[in-house]
This record gives sequence, C-alpha cells and structure tokens, in this order.
Amino acid sequence: MVSFESDYIAGAHPKIIEQIAKTNLECLPGYGTDKYCESAREKIKAACGCRQADVEFLTGGTQTNAIIIATMLKDYEGVIAAKTGHVSVHEAGAVEYTGHEVLELPQKDGKIAPDVLRDYMADFYADANHGHMVFPGMVYISYPTEYGTLYTKKELEDIAGICRRYGIPLFLDGARLGYGLASRAADVTLKDIARLCDVFYIGGTKVGALCGEAVVFTKGNKPKHFMTSVKKRGALLAKGRLLGVQFDALFTDGLYFNISRHAIDMAEKMKAIFQEKGYAFYLASPTNQQFVILDNDDMERLKKYAAFSFWEKLDDSHTVVRFATSWSTAESDLEELERAFGAESV
Amino acid sequence: MVSFESDYIAGAHPKIIEQIAKTNLECLPGYGTDKYCESAREKIKAACGCRQADVEFLTGGTQTNAIIIATMLKDYEGVIAAKTGHVSVHEAGAVEYTGHEVLELPQKDGKIAPDVLRDYMADFYADANHGHMVFPGMVYISYPTEYGTLYTKKELEDIAGICRRYGIPLFLDGARLGYGLASRAADVTLKDIARLCDVFYIGGTKVGALCGEAVVFTKGNKPKHFMTSVKKRGALLAKGRLLGVQFDALFTDGLYFNISRHAIDMAEKMKAIFQEKGYAFYLASPTNQQFVILDNDDMERLKKYAAFSFWEKLDDSHTVVRFATSWSTAESDLEELERAFGAESV
Amino acid sequence: MVSFESDYIAGAHPKIIEQIAKTNLECLPGYGTDKYCESAREKIKAACGCRQADVEFLTGGTQTNAIIIATMLKDYEGVIAAKTGHVSVHEAGAVEYTGHEVLELPQKDGKIAPDVLRDYMADFYADANHGHMVFPGMVYISYPTEYGTLYTKKELEDIAGICRRYGIPLFLDGARLGYGLASRAADVTLKDIARLCDVFYIGGTKVGALCGEAVVFTKGNKPKHFMTSVKKRGALLAKGRLLGVQFDALFTDGLYFNISRHAIDMAEKMKAIFQEKGYAFYLASPTNQQFVILDNDDMERLKKYAAFSFWEKLDDSHTVVRFATSWSTAESDLEELERAFGAESV
Amino acid sequence: MVSFESDYIAGAHPKIIEQIAKTNLECLPGYGTDKYCESAREKIKAACGCRQADVEFLTGGTQTNAIIIATMLKDYEGVIAAKTGHVSVHEAGAVEYTGHEVLELPQKDGKIAPDVLRDYMADFYADANHGHMVFPGMVYISYPTEYGTLYTKKELEDIAGICRRYGIPLFLDGARLGYGLASRAADVTLKDIARLCDVFYIGGTKVGALCGEAVVFTKGNKPKHFMTSVKKRGALLAKGRLLGVQFDALFTDGLYFNISRHAIDMAEKMKAIFQEKGYAFYLASPTNQQFVILDNDDMERLKKYAAFSFWEKLDDSHTVVRFATSWSTAESDLEELERAFGAESV
Repeated sequence: MVSFESDYIAGAHPKIIEQIAKTNLECLPGYGTDKYCESAREKIKAACGCRQADVEFLTGGTQTNAIIIATMLKDYEGVIAAKTGHVSVHEAGAVEYTGHEVLELPQKDGKIAPDVLRDYMADFYADANHGHMVFPGMVYISYPTEYGTLYTKKELEDIAGICRRYGIPLFLDGARLGYGLASRAADVTLKDIARLCDVFYIGGTKVGALCGEAVVFTKGNKPKHFMTSVKKRGALLAKGRLLGVQFDALFTDGLYFNISRHAIDMAEKMKAIFQEKGYAFYLASPTNQQFVILDNDDMERLKKYAAFSFWEKLDDSHTVVRFATSWSTAESDLEELERAFGAESV
Repeated sequence: MVSFESDYIAGAHPKIIEQIAKTNLECLPGYGTDKYCESAREKIKAACGCRQADVEFLTGGTQTNAIIIATMLKDYEGVIAAKTGHVSVHEAGAVEYTGHEVLELPQKDGKIAPDVLRDYMADFYADANHGHMVFPGMVYISYPTEYGTLYTKKELEDIAGICRRYGIPLFLDGARLGYGLASRAADVTLKDIARLCDVFYIGGTKVGALCGEAVVFTKGNKPKHFMTSVKKRGALLAKGRLLGVQFDALFTDGLYFNISRHAIDMAEKMKAIFQEKGYAFYLASPTNQQFVILDNDDMERLKKYAAFSFWEKLDDSHTVVRFATSWSTAESDLEELERAFGAESV
Repeated sequence: MVSFESDYIAGAHPKIIEQIAKTNLECLPGYGTDKYCESAREKIKAACGCRQADVEFLTGGTQTNAIIIATMLKDYEGVIAAKTGHVSVHEAGAVEYTGHEVLELPQKDGKIAPDVLRDYMADFYADANHGHMVFPGMVYISYPTEYGTLYTKKELEDIAGICRRYGIPLFLDGARLGYGLASRAADVTLKDIARLCDVFYIGGTKVGALCGEAVVFTKGNKPKHFMTSVKKRGALLAKGRLLGVQFDALFTDGLYFNISRHAIDMAEKMKAIFQEKGYAFYLASPTNQQFVILDNDDMERLKKYAAFSFWEKLDDSHTVVRFATSWSTAESDLEELERAFGAESV
Repeated sequence: MVSFESDYIAGAHPKIIEQIAKTNLECLPGYGTDKYCESAREKIKAACGCRQADVEFLTGGTQTNAIIIATMLKDYEGVIAAKTGHVSVHEAGAVEYTGHEVLELPQKDGKIAPDVLRDYMADFYADANHGHMVFPGMVYISYPTEYGTLYTKKELEDIAGICRRYGIPLFLDGARLGYGLASRAADVTLKDIARLCDVFYIGGTKVGALCGEAVVFTKGNKPKHFMTSVKKRGALLAKGRLLGVQFDALFTDGLYFNISRHAIDMAEKMKAIFQEKGYAFYLASPTNQQFVILDNDDMERLKKYAAFSFWEKLDDSHTVVRFATSWSTAESDLEELERAFGAESV
C-alpha cells in the first residue's frame, strides 16, 4: 500500500545517510561545536544572504517552537498565533509549559491577515486594563501554514512592519520551509525570509533529514547563553554532529532546494490526479500537503489502497483528508494512487 | 592526537549505522509506533527479565532525567540526589525548570550511602514543619555514578528498601549503564536493576548510539498519557524510528553488552598504563571513566598528545583529569597514549 | 463623585472590621490553623449542606484560580473555559504560568452552552491525533459570569453531567458568588452549587471582605498536601487568621447573603434608572454588574459625575460601559447617579 | 500560656487597625494605585534616603522572594543563597517553581562569608563546562538571617562589591528587617541597606502588619511591567489599599522603628532570663529570635507553661529551640516566662 500519510514516513535522503556513515568514526567534540555544525552554519548563512545571522540546531519542531518562544519572550508576554497554528493546537501545551500564553487570532486558510493583526495590537494597547492581560510579545506564523498555504511577500512585509512598529519579533516556523519556497506560488526567497523575520527555522525533519531544525536568528538577536537555555530544556544533543552533518549535506549543492522542488512536482501531479477524478479540494494549497474532500464511502474504499490522514469532518457524508508528498515520494507512488482510484471504482 | 575526552566523541557503532541505512527508505509510522521501536521494546523487556515493563525511547540524558522526574513527582515533591549527581550539577537547571527541587544529599565517591538516605527521610518526617518544605518524592542515583563508581547489590537493595518503605520510586540514571554492568566490579545484572528500580534508563548516546535512551518502567507505573507529556516537553521525535532502529540493533546478539565489555577492557588497560607510569588516581573507578591526578606541568605536556577532560583542581600544583574509554576506543589509541608518556618524558 | 467602577472600591463590611479589631491581640497559630479559620470552615460547610467538604482560604481570585487548576489538573491536561472567562483574558497568563493551557470555548453572554461543551468533548476524543493535543481535564465556569449572567440549574446540571461522564472536575469561580445567589433570577442555592460542582469558591474580596476567597472541595477531592502546594505558589498567609476571622464573620447570621441581597437591590434600582432614561443594555444582567450602551458624548459628560468602567467599543459612536454595585453601595449613591443624568442634560 | 512561638502570633499593631478602620469606607481605586499606597511609597523612599527607588507591595515573604527572583533572573541563571536560607529550605520549592535553581552555599551562623562567595564565583567561571551549569545570577541574603544573626556593614559591602564585579543584583530578604536594624549589634541603617542592595524588602507581616512586604528596587531596576508579572503569579491584591494603609501607618512617626526597638528590648530581657537560669545559646543572636539549648526533660516541662518552636536536635538529650519576641511581646509575657522556670523547678 502506498502512503501519503505524512512528510516524515521515510528516513533521510540517501546523501545524508551517506555522510553520516562516512564521518561516523571521526572523533569530534560534542554539543554542536564540531566542524560539521560549523560548516553547516556557514552554508546556511550564505544561503540566507545574512552574514550576521546566528544559526543553531535543534532536534524537532515542537522543541524548536517552545525554546524560541521561551527564550525570546519577556515574562509578561505571550505569542500571537493563528487559531490553527501548530503551537496553538498540536503541541500538547508545549508553549504553555514554558509559562507563556498563545494568543490565538482568527485565521483564513491557516493565515493571519495583516489587518487582523494590526487591529489586535491597536485594541490591546487601547484597553485601559491591558496591564492585567498578557502582552503580545511575538508573532508566530508558519510558512507554509498547517493548511499548506503561503503568505505572499506583501503579507509578510505587512506583518513584519507591524512587528517592527511594536518592537516585537516576527518568528516564522519553517518546519516545511523547503516546500513553501519551492512552491510555484511562492513569491519569496530564503533571503526574503531572512530579511523579514527576526527568527525562523529551516525544517530538516520533514525535508530530508532524520531529525533536525536549523534556527536562524537574523538580527544579532540570539538570546544570551542560548546553549545553556537549550540544555535547561533537555534539548542539547551530546552528539551535535548528528545535526551538523545532516544540515551540511542539505546545504551542499542545493540539495535542500532540489528535494523540496521534487516534492512540489509530485504534489502538482497528485493534485492533477484528484482533479481529473473530479474531487474537490478543501482549499487551494500550492505546497506538498493537499486537503481533499472525500465522500465517506469513497474514503473507506480508498483506505485499502493508500494511506492518508483524517483532517476533519466536513458534513455527515463527507470528510476532509490530507495527502502529503515529500522528498521521498516517487513517481511510482503516484501511479499506484491512480490505480487505486480505478480499483473497485473508488 | 588521540582523544579520551569523553565517551561520545565518535558516531555510532557500525552495526547501527548499517541498520539505519538498510531500513532508511521503509515507510514507517511516526512517533515511536513503528515496528523497530516495537521490536526493540520486546528485546529490552526480555533482557530485563521483566515482561510487564513499559519501554519508551527518548533522545538524550538530561531530557530523560527531566521528563521522568516531571511526570513521576507529585506537585509538592522533589527528587533526592547526590550533591555530585548529574541532575544536581550539569543539567543547567533542567529539573528546576520542571518546577521541582533537587534535594541534594552528601555523597562519597559519587554515591549516596543508604544510611544517609535513611536518616534524611526519618528527619524529614520528624520535623513538625515539614509541610513547609519540599517532600522527598523520588530517589535518583546513577549507575555508574558521575565518578565512575558502582553501587553494590547490597546498597541498591537497601536504597530500594527505603524507597519502598516511604512509597517513593527509585530512579536509576543509566546513561552509562552498559559500562557499569560490564565492569569487573559489578555484582548486579540488568535483571537486578529492573527488579530493584521503579524506573531506569539504558543509555544509548554514550554506549554505541548516535542518540537515544531507553526508559524502562518496571512496575506497571508508566505515567498515563506519557507520550503526550513527552510531546509537551518538546521531546517527541517525529521519526521515532531513529531510536527504535538503534536500540533494536543494540539489543540484537548482545551488541550492547559486547561493546560495553570492550570499553571496560580498554579502561583496564589504560588504568595499567597510568599505574605503571606511577600516577595516582583520585578514586578507584571500576568503569570506563578514570580520574587521574596529574602534576600541572605533566598535564600541560600531555595535552599536546592526548585529549582528556579537566575535572577539578586538587591543589596548587596538581589537577584531577578524566580519561574516558568507550565502545569506540581502539587498542591503537592506548598505544598512542603510552607513546605520549614517552615523548618529551611527560 | 459617586463611583460604580467596580465591586472592590470600598474596604470591608463594618462587622468584619469590628471582628478583626476585636480579635487582634489574641495569640493564634499561623497558616490557617487557628480557631477562626476552623470556625469559618464549619460554618461554610453547614451553609453548603456538605459535611464532607474541605474548605481552604486563599487571598484573591487569580491566585485561587491558578492554584486550583494547577493542583487538580494532570500533567497532560488543560482547563476548558469560555473565551470571555476571567482565566482566559484578565489574569495576565496566570494559568499558563502553571504550565497548563486554557482551552477556550465560544460563549454566549459569557456562558458555555452545554451542547457546545458536549460537542467539544466528543470531537476531542474522536480525533485520532488527540494524543498530540492538550487533554480537556477540567471545566471552569464563573457564577455569575464576567458579564453578570447566570447559568440556570438545568445548565449547571447538564454541564456537571458531561464532566462526570468524562471523569473531569467542574470548577466554579465564585468571585461574585453572593451576587449570583442573591439575584432574583437565580434558580440555584449554595447547596445546589456544592452538590453540582467538584470545587468552587466563595468570593470574599468582592463581597464584603478586605481580601479572601474560600475554596470548597466538595467530594473528598482536596489535593494531597494542598497547603504545601499553596506555599509553593507563595500563597500561604502567615497570619491565616486574617482570612479566618473575615469568613467567620461573613458566615455568621447570614451576613454574606444579606449584603449580597443589598447589592442586588441596588443593582435593580440602578437598572431602573437607566431604563427610565432610555438607555439600552448590552445584555440582560440579573446581577450586580450592568453593561450599558452609552452614546460617546453622553459618556464623556457622565464621567464628570460618576465613575464607571470602559468595557468595549460598540461602534464608532457608542461604547459599552460597566456600572457595578456592591455591598457598599448606598441609596444615596443611586440618587447621585440620578442627579448626574439631570446635570447638563446628560 | 505565654507564647514565644513566632513573631506572627498576634494581629497588627493597634495603630494599623485604627487606620484600616478609619479609611475603610473610602472609595479607592484598586491594585495598589490608591493614595495610601502612594503615600506609603513616598515615606519609604524618604526613610531609605533613595528618591529614585521604586516601591511595590506584596502580601507575604515567600511570595515576595519568588517574584523578585523570577522577574530579575535571566533564563539561564539561578540564585545563590546560604544552605540555611529561607528560600533554600522553608518555601516548599517556591523558587524552583519559577523554573530557577537555588545555588546553595555553605554558611556560618546563617551567613554567607564574602570569601566563600568570591571563591564560588571565581570557580564557576574558571570551569570550562560552566555553560552546562546554572549561572549564578543573583545573591540572596537575609537580614537578620534565619538564625537571627546580622551581617556587618563590612560584610555587606564586600558582598555588594562581588555582586557588582559580576554584574548581578544583591537581594536582601528583610522579612524581619526592623528587628535587624533595631538590634544593638547592627552597624547599618536602612539607608545603608538601600545603598548596598539592588533590591530588598521591608517585612510587614512579622513587624506589626497583618500582612504585607514592601519591596524596594533601589537602582531604577524595577522589572518592566512588574505589576503584570505580579498578577501572573496570583499576587496582585484587588484591594491594594490593605497594604498601602498598613505601610503608610508603619512609616508614620517612626512606628516601624519604634516597635522593632521594643521587640529587641524584650529579646534582650529574655536573653538575660535564660542566661540567669544558666541556659546555653546555640549561637549568639542579637535580634528577636533566640536559639536556646534545652535539656529534653526541661523542654517537656517548660512546654506546659510557654509555647516556643522546635529548631533541631542537638544530641540525644538536648534540643535547640527558638523563642521569638516581636512588637507584640509584653513585659508581662517575660514575667510569665520567668515564673515558668520557677514552676516545678524547670
């Protein structure tokens, strides 16, 4: 059975495995101070067009979100996020565990509209009682969003402008950043992201690595003694090389971008298959996650041939499901999906 | 230059790398629910002689300590540890970050004496004001300790007995468990550990893996919804397979025990080299970490040929340093060390 | 200028001050173990018709909410509250500081509809990924709500039933409980509250005391070593007598209920004044807080004669403001308010 | 039976009760913004000789310690305290609950010796691995200490100098500050305290008030949005007047100093009684707490006539107990104590 269940169903890109094996017996210092971490940092800074950036490696997305938020917010602040943001819903309270509130804003297609943000900030400071409330201390957005959608450059600029006006950082969750940048709908580059955001991360776990997220602080704003704060949260890998070697490979010869582009190519083909079969999409996603509306009976039949994720109930007879491609999706997977539709006339 | 700086200077045992590569493109479910995690769990339970055990995988030692302590302590409790315990000193406040105090007891050679523990517990409950103090809610010990020493079976039984009497769990930090069990001085087996402790972990990071610790709850006492609590602390790996595949390899054909024994063999040879050269040891360690007293001038000369760790100043002209062997230490490393002593007559 | 700004603008009811003065030089043990605390506990248990209840005293509302939530939730749980609930909005992140999320539900007139709660619970457990989300572990409601409205007995029974079905406690924030129970619209008694809720508190700060809230655990469910958990959160008063003496006075000869009724009488008269002047209410509140819609020009003029609170902007020319009565509101205050409308023809 | 059990056995000084009663029905704004809080702030600043100070009021000592530490430490820091410090022992983990470690130093008579502190700081930064440890971010001392002893001006200057050298604040817990300053052995004034410390508090609970501690930030270093951080920790009193009125009274006509002096006079008389009866002191305390060594049989007999506190077991037949005087101790209490010794020939 073919699987489109998520973008982390396979191990790592073969070039990464190769590098892990090749460097395996080298004797290296721990905690992210080895030469591969150093090399990866340099390559990432170059790719971001941001020489003054600080790059640090963490293991997974929830961990990264929680640590960035915990170390960059002040005591009296919370983080603004879309109601559907990963930090709002799917992190088991990891942000609250840091002692900070997620200030949820209404969303559209997974995105916070700049106007909604602008009004929220203005209303907060207009309220005479705001000292009794959590101060908005950071804006969290994801690119692509949890619904596969993308902010436009204009939207990012507007949001960044609002953040600057209020002196709070803009944090971009890039767990699937490659798939966003490689999208045919994207009008921003990695350099734009680095320019507009105060901090963001380049997702490895979902884009070719076994694990790992590369955090980029773009404005000389890395929290002091960040490594100690990382250790305090149990997130400092003794063998930091595991992350360094992987990101070094991902940022050699454009691997990260190439495999991201492949995932998008596969997503576009998948989209065409659904369209051809007459299925509707829950929303228009230009990235690797596609949200399809299935008749419940069709859904049950299709389950026998392909794995995908339940997203939400649409109505009594229809369900929204997610099909995800990734760097590991093969042409043959799509052929198998196409055949699945034929079988038993799903 | 040869390095004895720590037991995590190399990558992973080649058999582990081989398995990671071999299983790499298999499509597997996430979050520790894959078949390799399942297989590793079964093998570990068998090795522990504890069919009712629950086994979960985490990424590193500090993370594991913090999560076990956070999920097993009650709100009003803290964890007892030796003043030199890893949780007391070298975790950047990771336990306190969970909102719990480390109740430090005096130690000898890194160990808590059962009598010291017994008195502490009795005194606590004898104090009429104990309701204003943190309740002792767990005992944390490490095996081997941070000084390479080992608790005897009698000591473990005594400590376990005290814990049972007060109804609090005994937690054994086994970050270097293999090196303890393989020591020629050890009088306990993995099965004894599983019988005597309420929870412990089998260290992977320092014993052959790239990362990973296998937590064993031995008494049907795994905290409810443990996976959610792990996620809440940013410690749930999307590709849990990375840990499952490694522990599955480590517990196949006795790999974990074999490579641990090798490290001990290397440590014994290293010990003999120091003894032959007339160096004194800070204390008698029967495991892979050796604490040697060096004249400061000798230390500076030796640094040019071999890497080791500063431990503490002994007096104005002498220093305690640590030399660690591991699964990756080669005979040739010891020969190089021996040559280093000859060079410039260190 | 007369003030209706809040229900905590005056000190304490004279009978309370009298008792504080009278008992002042008595030598009493600390931390809530004195005879006045004991007497107050007994009187409250009798008033609740709940002999098996445990009663503890805390200082203020936010503190009480945070401590009850922190000590009754499990690690993986959060607390359900209306989006307008005090814990959601006006506590500066006090709940999140305990490491737990507030799970916000849509509200109507400040209340959670039983159906909305029922669907939320069902949807949560229907979601295959709920292990990655915060578990709903408690329902928080306020009585009266932050909008002065009241749950009916039927609504409380329905909500309690849902809580029981899922095995989670129902927690009622009674910061203004007296004003709710004394309302002419109330169809529940203190005994009903004690029967239906697992834990609730009887607000003192807003109902006649200088400070103090009496927490009632109704089902033998007081968290173990609760006093230690209170101390851990800096909330244990050395001179617990301050709370005991006040609640003892409030529950002697029905003082708490009598002064609550007076506040409601004053609120009804105030309501009549607004109605007579032709002002509209934002919603129908049967308790001591009245939310009035004022034309912005009228609002500015009225400010010169009476103090009240801004609540929210209704539209460009109208504002919702709050007028609160309390035990300390005098007939003469209402006369002054009435005169204010006459002045300069507000 | 006469009680010397603690310094918080009585209510408040009559002048305070009088002021609470007198101002009771005044209509005042909440949360510490009323005129009495303002007046008290001004008087305290004048008494401290520190016009630029910021003064805030909190309810109790543990709360104050936790909030100052939480809001002034950075994420990677902990607070240095004597092993016998209140924050180390008797606060049920309140500091750890803020996510920060108490770094315990050895003490003598309850005090940290400047040399011990100096060495600790130097050793910390000399350790190459200090990034894996909690950074010392504040020094906490109490004046008087938990053993009633006092730092000399020279000691305070030395400690303050070390703090300045490392750029960390010196925090002085003045829960019993009045009794320290009024001691015949004191060589510092309130102005010296204000000059040498970065933050300290003037204890009210143990020195004449029903509750309340006045925090003084002396160097323009009050944490931003401190009131919001206080609210976040459930420590913001709605009727802040309760604290303002009390401190306003305490700092009118030298009341705070006068009643403190009285307590010291009583303590000196009490000391003389013990000396006359031939009892030994555990240590020489020049303040209101006296630690006496009693033969266990004597202790049991004395218990029938006077209340005092168990401190610690000295040996099998002797016990250290504490007798505390306070502003409320009367000459007649001492006469009763003297008579107690005569009775049954204790």
